[in-house]
Amino acid sequence: MIENAVRTLARAANFATLTTLMPDGHPQTNVMWVDADDEHIYMNSEVHRQKFKNIQRDPRVTVVIMSSANPYEYAEVRGRVVEIETGDAGRAGIDTLSRKYLGRDYPTAVQSERVGIKITPDRQRVWLT
Amino acid sequence: MIENAVRTLARAANFATLTTLMPDGHPQTNVMWVDADDEHIYMNSEVHRQKFKNIQRDPRVTVVIMSSANPYEYAEVRGRVVEIETGDAGRAGIDTLSRKYLGRDYPTAVQSERVGIKITPDRQRVWLT
Repeated sequence: MIENAVRTLARAANFATLTTLMPDGHPQTNVMWVDADDEHIYMNSEVHRQKFKNIQRDPRVTVVIMSSANPYEYAEVRGRVVEIETGDAGRAGIDTLSRKYLGRDYPTAVQSERVGIKITPDRQRVWLT
Repeated sequence: MIENAVRTLARAANFATLTTLMPDGHPQTNVMWVDADDEHIYMNSEVHRQKFKNIQRDPRVTVVIMSSANPYEYAEVRGRVVEIETGDAGRAGIDTLSRKYLGRDYPTAVQSERVGIKITPDRQRVWLT
């Protein structure tokens, strides 16, 4: 289950970092859009991205969701990618995120197949001021 | 050498994430204050923190520095912790950071010894809009 405070941060138009593990174990981090349902953190990527290759090899990830209103408020979720949505579901996912952040469907040309990434939490920690 | 665009982001009052590696290799991420000189990314922590224990065991870290003005502009620095400043230097470091972010010396009680963390980059990548 996603904790209430984590879900609140993830469902607002806040930005998150996704950290995956490179083949040698070094962390790789990107700033991403984010969302959540009751069970999972949700992000969306493309199949040609290094981060997607990383999670296919090692599903262990860490997500930090930061409040845009207060930089001292954020959540850290350590977990694992448990589901990848491809095809129409992957494309629909980026449009849903885009409507939250930009107010319209995703306007950027998709360079390869979009993929939805569902993360189940092992450990959730929240810093509120 | 720190690239110019990375240094500009790190020297402003922007927030950063520091990702370290837990004993099992899972990434751990915190939101932190950040600074830089020509050679290193600089952060400051305390000796009792998990992230400090992590870098003592495995110096591989990844720092993402995000523009407070534009959430689509950020830098990712993958590198290694190459120097730890303890004692008076560690304490002076958090006061210098605090003056940048809060306009005054660090106001919070220090729970244990402060440590300055110097990171040398192996790979730097910048996203600007």
